Amino acid sequence: MRGVVMYEPGDVRVEEREDPRIIEPTDAVIRLSATCICGSDLWPYRGVEPADHQVMGHEYVGVVEEVGSDVRGIRVGDFVVGSFVISDNTCEICRAGYQSRCVHASFVAQAIGTQSERARIPYADGTLVPTPGQPDPELIPSLLAVSDVLGTGWFAADAAQAGPGKTVAVVGDGAVGLMGVLAAKELGAERIIAMSRHADRQELARFYGATDIVTERGDEGVERVRELTNGLGAHSVIEAVGTQESMMQAIRSTRPGGHMGYVGVSHNVELSGDELFFSAVHLHGGPAPVRRFLPDLIRRVWDREIDPGRVFDLSLPLEKAAEGYRAMDERRAIKTLLTL
Amino acid sequence: MRGVVMYEPGDVRVEEREDPRIIEPTDAVIRLSATCICGSDLWPYRGVEPADHQVMGHEYVGVVEEVGSDVRGIRVGDFVVGSFVISDNTCEICRAGYQSRCVHASFVAQAIGTQSERARIPYADGTLVPTPGQPDPELIPSLLAVSDVLGTGWFAADAAQAGPGKTVAVVGDGAVGLMGVLAAKELGAERIIAMSRHADRQELARFYGATDIVTERGDEGVERVRELTNGLGAHSVIEAVGTQESMMQAIRSTRPGGHMGYVGVSHNVELSGDELFFSAVHLHGGPAPVRRFLPDLIRRVWDREIDPGRVFDLSLPLEKAAEGYRAMDERRAIKTLLTL
Repeated sequence: MRGVVMYEPGDVRVEEREDPRIIEPTDAVIRLSATCICGSDLWPYRGVEPADHQVMGHEYVGVVEEVGSDVRGIRVGDFVVGSFVISDNTCEICRAGYQSRCVHASFVAQAIGTQSERARIPYADGTLVPTPGQPDPELIPSLLAVSDVLGTGWFAADAAQAGPGKTVAVVGDGAVGLMGVLAAKELGAERIIAMSRHADRQELARFYGATDIVTERGDEGVERVRELTNGLGAHSVIEAVGTQESMMQAIRSTRPGGHMGYVGVSHNVELSGDELFFSAVHLHGGPAPVRRFLPDLIRRVWDREIDPGRVFDLSLPLEKAAEGYRAMDERRAIKTLLTL
Repeated sequence: MRGVVMYEPGDVRVEEREDPRIIEPTDAVIRLSATCICGSDLWPYRGVEPADHQVMGHEYVGVVEEVGSDVRGIRVGDFVVGSFVISDNTCEICRAGYQSRCVHASFVAQAIGTQSERARIPYADGTLVPTPGQPDPELIPSLLAVSDVLGTGWFAADAAQAGPGKTVAVVGDGAVGLMGVLAAKELGAERIIAMSRHADRQELARFYGATDIVTERGDEGVERVRELTNGLGAHSVIEAVGTQESMMQAIRSTRPGGHMGYVGVSHNVELSGDELFFSAVHLHGGPAPVRRFLPDLIRRVWDREIDPGRVFDLSLPLEKAAEGYRAMDERRAIKTLLTL
């Protein structure tokens, strides 16, 4: 089959990869209907993380082609959405809603690489959720978004306790930040402040429910959020970048006693215990347990309550994956969908 | 009046200080019935924080002697318990339960110093809570404990979401850690692991409800907590020290998705964003909003449901405060009560 391999930072190729097959009786093999490039794929692309002939991709939707003998909840022919972390969904950690830290967790990104035609999914019963039927083609981008960016933005909004009566600030205007805006809106937030300097992203943020835009960054951005919240800071802040600056911007934008949900994969961040202590904020985040939210989010997409698929502003055939990486790296695209 | 002044680290004296008087119409002046020395007073005593002729003390109970013209809820003659942070208890932050970050917050420690015969308490209506009547003398140590160590341990247990079905680990066997054990027990925790190497403190931890004792520290301590929790870590962890080692011990002892409540005043702590991210724990803490818990905790003491006063294992007259500091510094005492 064809699939994306990153030879080294900046060098993305589509080439023949070995066809996946059932190895464990709990596996399924799916044929992808669509896949995409994630903001986090840019970390190795830019050399911030290593890359050495690494298979790429961790977002996926598709049709089940084959299942192992122990798979019970998934059948051949089902259209499924999966999380970017494999989980058994039965251990004590999964049952508490933290499937991304399942005792059998593994990252699809490193082990599988779903920027490809087909993929083997371990623990299929615990990782995949079937849709109510075969989706209309126009629903596929939104179902694909559920697999990571929407699930992650939703987790951030949940961790930040976005809800009725709350003012929510969102640090980061990438796809996850925009999905955080959507989630905050769906969860009933009263006011949503999107922090963005790019006109196209501001527009999409407003489409998804942002009521205010703050273009300033760092401490100036914090000051603007304070001005908009009687000097107190936002009740809920979503962090969707992962840098020192964005983390501090998020913590300082949160009022004492407020909640900060962080989902930007952390890179070279050091938090001062002293500042954290006196901030009195709640901090929660990490790799999103997307599996917890899949049934609810699939239903919202299926019923056309939400349209997360609009976050894809570039669509290319899998064979042109390298161009998709370039477009995102140069900020010409928010998120690239790869068709199959 | 007589009061404690720390001339410099290690040099504690009791000397004449100016008598407090009403300055603002929202003030009250109280005559202290008892006061005490806090573990956090040892930071300047040991030179970790600066001390230059600093008035000391932030825990207090006593009888109201005089009130300003705007004070409504407190009367002359009332026996009152106060928080170690002044709060108006009416601002938006206070109403959300974060009185320690009130828009009018100030620290009793720096501004007032209650290791003294009398004290002026600003925002008396928002800071002080009267007891149902004049307390029996044997209740006074417990009411004094409410003012900080119990209120702080309670906040940590609340932040760690200690409760029915939960395994709670407590890092730190000082007075606040021991009060964290008591709070976890009262909140219904199923299992309470006290981390302590000192026999006297282990005994008190068991008295307050600890079901297990772990004597190891650092990563060995973490390993022991994991062994006691099916390899997963505790649901809830209380941190009551404030060092790099104790913070990492606490974070690593918490299971993914679990809650870590930290109240040890942070000193030279740097948290790696990367480790925090993948830990997937909830982190919350800071200066405890004791005022939130005062009515409930006073009632529990008044009804003799709890006996936090046992945490005082040394009692000295105010004039002998220096000996009290020495005893705590040398770990001969857990906590020193100063009589008046």
